[in-house]
Amino acid sequence: MDQQEVKAILNQVAAGSLSTEDALLKLKLAPFEELDIATLDMHRGVRQGASEVIYGAGKTPEQIDIIAHRLWESGQKTVLITRMKESAAEAFTKDIPFTYYREGRIGLVGSMIPPRTKGYILVATGGTSDIPVAEEAALTAQIMGNHVERIYDVGVAGIHRLLAHTETIMRARVIIAIAGMEGALASVIGGLADCPVIAVPTSVGYGTALGGVTALLSMLNSCASGVSVVNIDNGFGAGYLASLINNMEGEKE
Amino acid sequence: MDQQEVKAILNQVAAGSLSTEDALLKLKLAPFEELDIATLDMHRGVRQGASEVIYGAGKTPEQIDIIAHRLWESGQKTVLITRMKESAAEAFTKDIPFTYYREGRIGLVGSMIPPRTKGYILVATGGTSDIPVAEEAALTAQIMGNHVERIYDVGVAGIHRLLAHTETIMRARVIIAIAGMEGALASVIGGLADCPVIAVPTSVGYGTALGGVTALLSMLNSCASGVSVVNIDNGFGAGYLASLINNMEGEKE
Amino acid sequence: MDQQEVKAILNQVAAGSLSTEDALLKLKLAPFEELDIATLDMHRGVRQGASEVIYGAGKTPEQIDIIAHRLWESGQKTVLITRMKESAAEAFTKDIPFTYYREGRIGLVGSMIPPRTKGYILVATGGTSDIPVAEEAALTAQIMGNHVERIYDVGVAGIHRLLAHTETIMRARVIIAIAGMEGALASVIGGLADCPVIAVPTSVGYGTALGGVTALLSMLNSCASGVSVVNIDNGFGAGYLASLINNMEGEKE
Amino acid sequence: MDQQEVKAILNQVAAGSLSTEDALLKLKLAPFEELDIATLDMHRGVRQGASEVIYGAGKTPEQIDIIAHRLWESGQKTVLITRMKESAAEAFTKDIPFTYYREGRIGLVGSMIPPRTKGYILVATGGTSDIPVAEEAALTAQIMGNHVERIYDVGVAGIHRLLAHTETIMRARVIIAIAGMEGALASVIGGLADCPVIAVPTSVGYGTALGGVTALLSMLNSCASGVSVVNIDNGFGAGYLASLINNMEGEKE
Amino acid sequence: MDQQEVKAILNQVAAGSLSTEDALLKLKLAPFEELDIATLDMHRGVRQGASEVIYGAGKTPEQIDIIAHRLWESGQKTVLITRMKESAAEAFTKDIPFTYYREGRIGLVGSMIPPRTKGYILVATGGTSDIPVAEEAALTAQIMGNHVERIYDVGVAGIHRLLAHTETIMRARVIIAIAGMEGALASVIGGLADCPVIAVPTSVGYGTALGGVTALLSMLNSCASGVSVVNIDNGFGAGYLASLINNMEGEKE
Amino acid sequence: MDQQEVKAILNQVAAGSLSTEDALLKLKLAPFEELDIATLDMHRGVRQGASEVIYGAGKTPEQIDIIAHRLWESGQKTVLITRMKESAAEAFTKDIPFTYYREGRIGLVGSMIPPRTKGYILVATGGTSDIPVAEEAALTAQIMGNHVERIYDVGVAGIHRLLAHTETIMRARVIIAIAGMEGALASVIGGLADCPVIAVPTSVGYGTALGGVTALLSMLNSCASGVSVVNIDNGFGAGYLASLINNMEGEKE
Amino acid sequence: MDQQEVKAILNQVAAGSLSTEDALLKLKLAPFEELDIATLDMHRGVRQGASEVIYGAGKTPEQIDIIAHRLWESGQKTVLITRMKESAAEAFTKDIPFTYYREGRIGLVGSMIPPRTKGYILVATGGTSDIPVAEEAALTAQIMGNHVERIYDVGVAGIHRLLAHTETIMRARVIIAIAGMEGALASVIGGLADCPVIAVPTSVGYGTALGGVTALLSMLNSCASGVSVVNIDNGFGAGYLASLINNMEGEKE
Amino acid sequence: MDQQEVKAILNQVAAGSLSTEDALLKLKLAPFEELDIATLDMHRGVRQGASEVIYGAGKTPEQIDIIAHRLWESGQKTVLITRMKESAAEAFTKDIPFTYYREGRIGLVGSMIPPRTKGYILVATGGTSDIPVAEEAALTAQIMGNHVERIYDVGVAGIHRLLAHTETIMRARVIIAIAGMEGALASVIGGLADCPVIAVPTSVGYGTALGGVTALLSMLNSCASGVSVVNIDNGFGAGYLASLINNMEGEKE
Repeated sequence: MDQQEVKAILNQVAAGSLSTEDALLKLKLAPFEELDIATLDMHRGVRQGASEVIYGAGKTPEQIDIIAHRLWESGQKTVLITRMKESAAEAFTKDIPFTYYREGRIGLVGSMIPPRTKGYILVATGGTSDIPVAEEAALTAQIMGNHVERIYDVGVAGIHRLLAHTETIMRARVIIAIAGMEGALASVIGGLADCPVIAVPTSVGYGTALGGVTALLSMLNSCASGVSVVNIDNGFGAGYLASLINNMEGEKE
Repeated sequence: MDQQEVKAILNQVAAGSLSTEDALLKLKLAPFEELDIATLDMHRGVRQGASEVIYGAGKTPEQIDIIAHRLWESGQKTVLITRMKESAAEAFTKDIPFTYYREGRIGLVGSMIPPRTKGYILVATGGTSDIPVAEEAALTAQIMGNHVERIYDVGVAGIHRLLAHTETIMRARVIIAIAGMEGALASVIGGLADCPVIAVPTSVGYGTALGGVTALLSMLNSCASGVSVVNIDNGFGAGYLASLINNMEGEKE
Repeated sequence: MDQQEVKAILNQVAAGSLSTEDALLKLKLAPFEELDIATLDMHRGVRQGASEVIYGAGKTPEQIDIIAHRLWESGQKTVLITRMKESAAEAFTKDIPFTYYREGRIGLVGSMIPPRTKGYILVATGGTSDIPVAEEAALTAQIMGNHVERIYDVGVAGIHRLLAHTETIMRARVIIAIAGMEGALASVIGGLADCPVIAVPTSVGYGTALGGVTALLSMLNSCASGVSVVNIDNGFGAGYLASLINNMEGEKE
Repeated sequence: MDQQEVKAILNQVAAGSLSTEDALLKLKLAPFEELDIATLDMHRGVRQGASEVIYGAGKTPEQIDIIAHRLWESGQKTVLITRMKESAAEAFTKDIPFTYYREGRIGLVGSMIPPRTKGYILVATGGTSDIPVAEEAALTAQIMGNHVERIYDVGVAGIHRLLAHTETIMRARVIIAIAGMEGALASVIGGLADCPVIAVPTSVGYGTALGGVTALLSMLNSCASGVSVVNIDNGFGAGYLASLINNMEGEKE
Repeated sequence: MDQQEVKAILNQVAAGSLSTEDALLKLKLAPFEELDIATLDMHRGVRQGASEVIYGAGKTPEQIDIIAHRLWESGQKTVLITRMKESAAEAFTKDIPFTYYREGRIGLVGSMIPPRTKGYILVATGGTSDIPVAEEAALTAQIMGNHVERIYDVGVAGIHRLLAHTETIMRARVIIAIAGMEGALASVIGGLADCPVIAVPTSVGYGTALGGVTALLSMLNSCASGVSVVNIDNGFGAGYLASLINNMEGEKE
Repeated sequence: MDQQEVKAILNQVAAGSLSTEDALLKLKLAPFEELDIATLDMHRGVRQGASEVIYGAGKTPEQIDIIAHRLWESGQKTVLITRMKESAAEAFTKDIPFTYYREGRIGLVGSMIPPRTKGYILVATGGTSDIPVAEEAALTAQIMGNHVERIYDVGVAGIHRLLAHTETIMRARVIIAIAGMEGALASVIGGLADCPVIAVPTSVGYGTALGGVTALLSMLNSCASGVSVVNIDNGFGAGYLASLINNMEGEKE
Repeated sequence: MDQQEVKAILNQVAAGSLSTEDALLKLKLAPFEELDIATLDMHRGVRQGASEVIYGAGKTPEQIDIIAHRLWESGQKTVLITRMKESAAEAFTKDIPFTYYREGRIGLVGSMIPPRTKGYILVATGGTSDIPVAEEAALTAQIMGNHVERIYDVGVAGIHRLLAHTETIMRARVIIAIAGMEGALASVIGGLADCPVIAVPTSVGYGTALGGVTALLSMLNSCASGVSVVNIDNGFGAGYLASLINNMEGEKE
Repeated sequence: MDQQEVKAILNQVAAGSLSTEDALLKLKLAPFEELDIATLDMHRGVRQGASEVIYGAGKTPEQIDIIAHRLWESGQKTVLITRMKESAAEAFTKDIPFTYYREGRIGLVGSMIPPRTKGYILVATGGTSDIPVAEEAALTAQIMGNHVERIYDVGVAGIHRLLAHTETIMRARVIIAIAGMEGALASVIGGLADCPVIAVPTSVGYGTALGGVTALLSMLNSCASGVSVVNIDNGFGAGYLASLINNMEGEKE
């Protein structure tokens, strides 16, 4: 039952051709969701800003091309394509504004949303092998309208490299701590910082690294407060969440 | 927004004191679910029959007592209490019809629903230790209105014990196959029967039985078709599902 | 010992050339199963209908070709080939009626069995990547003689997309809920529907999706009643079981 | 080297009895951390507000009593004691302001910090068994200065119960979604809300619930964006993190 | 259909009161298994010797008492009760010959079967904590009619203790190697011996011993040939299998 | 210290140039093992018969070629090469007697050892995909001097196929039961047979078959007595062990 | 063959009553190990110093009492009893020098071995709950003759607490890093120190701490060099190994 | 704040233009780490000797080339490149001294550090497939300045092969025991030796070898004292740690 149908019922009630009891029955029996989906969607559109996301893994270059163009044509100002292979980027029809970020495997249709806060999201990695995940996180946050600082390869085995960035850590509004192997980076950063820390385990490592499960378990058991965790290698999820938090509207009582 | 409020809006439209546009807006903005929950619940009530279920584990005897009495007083004819400890049954206020089935750890307020089909659900176990789970399943099915046949302790290690019941197996409308340890019962029964087989792994066994995980994995990998699986020791779930299937209305084109 | 041999023994007894004791011994020693296998097989043939299934994985195109032709020549009206690669379909000798359904990786020799009920089996997926498994399930059910409805890509993250199909869900006779990642679709559908729900976890996802194990565990722990689970990616098993249930003959007492 | 020693060095420099070169050398060689710990701690004190936390599990009532009193005497206005057993609460020396919240197993010395924002943190649970964890989360957030809304027992198996709270969900600034068993609540809430969602798996369930691991895996694989996860049963961690996020200072460019 | 019924049919055929056709039909329709169970069981009885086994775990002292007495009264010369608690042994009605072996938790009704071979089964353990499992194995083998040698506490950490028994190891007909922790005993014994080695992992150990899983995995991966494995702590199974092997009838061509 | 050195010491003692005390000391200090290895090896050679085994996996064709030739040249009558790729067989220098068994991936240098017993080892598989492992087992046993019977594709889902071979099962001296997926074959055969059953899980299956772990766990938990288990896909180990058991010399007291 | 027998053979050779050839044969055939065990044991005695160890877990107070007294009476100067319950310590017959260390659950018969090096072993823990394991390690090392420094409760969540001990860390000869939960302490200490670090995971934590497995995995994946790991809660093993390393004799070329 | 800034503050104090209180405050507020990192690094440089390590896995040949050349040019005398592919070695610009060790996948720029002790590190493997890991360990130790002895393919299944090396084992200063499959080598060697044993599990094996996890678990549960474990296949880590231990400076009190 769409809005036209509801309106028709209401009109019948107004015209006296339908009793309120019958109208109530009709509305009661109507599949409840049809009425509200549009509303719901509109709300989401308004709140989440202009960014749409295409999850590129498991989609053909053609599929990505078509979906991205449709979104652009429907007025979307910013379309983020994650896990986009270089070959898909090369095959992309470049008749609309398109940028490809190789390291983060991210395609951008349109332009980045300008930052709305002065503060920054800090993206830190334990090693150089974690950088692709980090770039996915960092670019997601930048595209969604955030300043981003990066400090890469500051694993805890050389704790002084990390401590050299203490001030940058302490001044961040949100931190994304990315590490494979033993994932201790999240705990140490969580101990230094007072802001929310989003930990991203990566599949970097071998043997008992178990494809990221060890880092994940380690991060979930962080003895530092303020740390939460997303799925292994989920840079996009961390960047998206960090953007949500960074853009919280302060509202003091 | 409950039905009274919707009715009020419709009355205003009927009286001409509210335009159809404004009524539509009010309805659109109303949290969509309030309108439909009653409907939904009524539908469920009608379809699922008169049975209500209380999951007894983790509830105090007092909580069970109160909830069961309320349901009875609200007109519920059959209330099924699962995982009910003997002490809770003893403490139950017996001013309403109440029966306790010790082996299946099930309490029944009111009376069993009479069977609606002539066929039966077969409940089979691999060993005697599986019987509590089997009784939970069997009683659930009986209370919900089904004939139930039981063949217990027919594990595959003595395949002839099981084969002695071939005819009972072949004539069942639905079979619940319950086994711990290696869980092979489900596969063998699945190979003999043509009807749906619901496999229930139990936590019976030691060492690599892994608390039922081995039986579960075994059942999920059954090479027989027509077998599906529920959670470890979930006799209630199997009985409930078997009842749903057994009461399917046949409707030939 | 086949029936001729049993008859020979009986004839000897009738003729007095064999004592009843010796006859008993002969029968006792006879491998007990030979007597009954034919019966058993005939029963299965009668009950399961005309469909035979070839599990294509791990078979060469030649093997599939030969087996399918033999079954067809022996009078089988419908032969279902699952997990059939496109290359095997291309190499198939097309001198008998053959159709290949690419997305579901299913080959069909002969024709679909006409539906015997008016109701339908609903096949729902959480995402688009689950569609190959869904098509395996849907086509299996169709070939075995069922109406099938499909609602794909209605994952719970956009719950409104799913709720838009509430009526289709509520009217289904059996539902196959297919999802990877966190597998929550089965629980939500299980909560909306009153009919049996067969949950199929898929290997879609990455990291802690653990190749489908997470979805499997989630589905086994569904808080909704009426849900059972089959092996990861086992579309065929779900379709087969759904057909069994959908074709239950209603028999009211 | 503590501050007195640094001051002594500086005094020697001021008095001319130590050259700047020698002073620099002394400072350089000093273990770097002694100089800065106080600073660091002061910073943390300033930023995190007046709340101190005692992790009660594994501590004797006497230990808790002593630590809490010392913190209070050192000027701490609010001391939060988590995982505090009722017996420890009863044994607590009540010569300082003390409140015990039984359901959340939380002891409070001093008073709650008044909320600094008008918005609220929403704490939702799938079942009633999840409430102890939920109360730990909710009380932690309240004590740290936040408005908290609670909606309990809104598991996805009865999706309409959850949808009845759509507006409350949509208006929250941060949501803590708490569930055991299959943990689907986090995904559904994540799909409805635009704010950060902190998912807390609980050890509620049996069999393949695996003591909370299934809910955890499910939540990590949530197909909804904006969801992150903390350790099983870690209500405190979720409440603490939610408070950090809710108290973000909005700072538009 | 038991043998009496079959005989009756045959008698009718012999008497001419039943045609061979009708007799064939009756036999064909008879559930096939009823004919053969007695046969099957008798065969097993003959081959396996006079021993019957009661699995005592999960049975009440009363149940054990009743079953054991019935078996004795039905002519069983030797009844083996495994996992029998001391309390059950004390409560046992001693009006029939009964011996209780505390360390192996085994009860024996009747007398041990005299050994039929001159050779011996060797039972070896890695540590003293493995002895209860070892005694279960050793006594099972002794009761079933085998000479048994024991060498306990010869773990590989003190390899010389084990090597001191090289001759005993080399002369054994079958070896049961029992160990917890890292389970290396099976590999080392397997490397020294030429006979079949049955490895029994035990739940001895802590931490990553994982309740016997580590020893199990280790034994399954033994680089020595001739080693096979039974379930964790399954002393009975090992003793039973060792007896089967030791009593193999040599039959040279 | 080799035998020459020991002999030299003894000669010195015989000549009176070395006291018995000093000789004892020298022998005591000598690394104990050098003296005995030859003995040990000779013993093994005598007992195990003329067969040598080369584990082909992870060896280059050249390495296999060289080792096999050396063994042949040193007088070995039978050399068994397991996990030998077809390419390695093709590259093998055929100047010595060589046979390649493709399905079992086994190469044989020299000739099979003639069977020493009249009885047979039975090799049974659940499905056709298990045949490579089965052939590895069967050929190993044949090469080591055993009669072997094969019954393949008799999985428990069609229990009648298996029961058709009851007599063959009951007459076997040793049975190797090979199955993937749920591995129930071992339990059913174990329940039918009185002889030792060696269960071999295979990596056949998908999803929760977990690469053979499910079959392994299932087999370890077999409720049938007399069953033991070897590593996943370890056909050679099963064949070797079966041969050891089948060639046990019967020795009645 | 013990030393007396070897001596007898040598005497016969010396007396000319046994040829050297025959003597060689006798020695060759003698089970090799009997000759050398004493030697081996004596060697171990000499090298490992005067300490003997009794693993107290799973032993009765009486057993511990007897073994400890026997070792003392046979001249052992230092007997270390690990995992000794307080009740066993109370029941210990105090007629020989005995000290009980409650926190480390260690009993000491005789006296500590005086340290042989000036340097120290550092024992560090992440939290206060790790102290029992730490004391087991520290006391083991002290009893075996080492100086030990302790820094407890220096988990990485408050990295400054750990850094305050940088000098103590850098000057240690061996470090034992003990932590539960996420076990990051080992990595951070490993990054600061140049000496061997022995990491001990503890079973401290809840939920995904998995009884110490998370800390174990984390430590095995430490990105710092020089770190190795022992079993969960294995304080004794770490202390023993640290003592071995600390007492290495320096031997420059 | 770098050293110039500290010097400036000190100069101001010396000049009387800054009070000691203000100077203290300035120093206290300075980010603590900047002052000390250089110091820290210098310390590490001095202590660890001249060797630098490049982890070659996941780096392109170009990256390895550049980093190695930079380290050489900055005065590094020995640069160790681990997990270096043969192709990377071939592509390496050979204008500086470079050696490639194929079996251990190690590249060496410059020359090995001459051994500083007379004793040796023993590297032992269970099988020939473990040799690549063993060579990584052995070469790492050699390059860092140690004598290394190798005994390969001495798995416990042929315990005599291992015992033939008893003296070599007993005389080693540190032992690296490397094994896949069941990993029993570490326990047996640990039982023979008195020195520290570093166990390295390898991913050699199939089925339940679980990619090295079985060997790892086995080694962690070694019943021998003095054994610790590193990550699966981590030859470098073992060689590095062994070198640290072997180069301990003996310092008797």
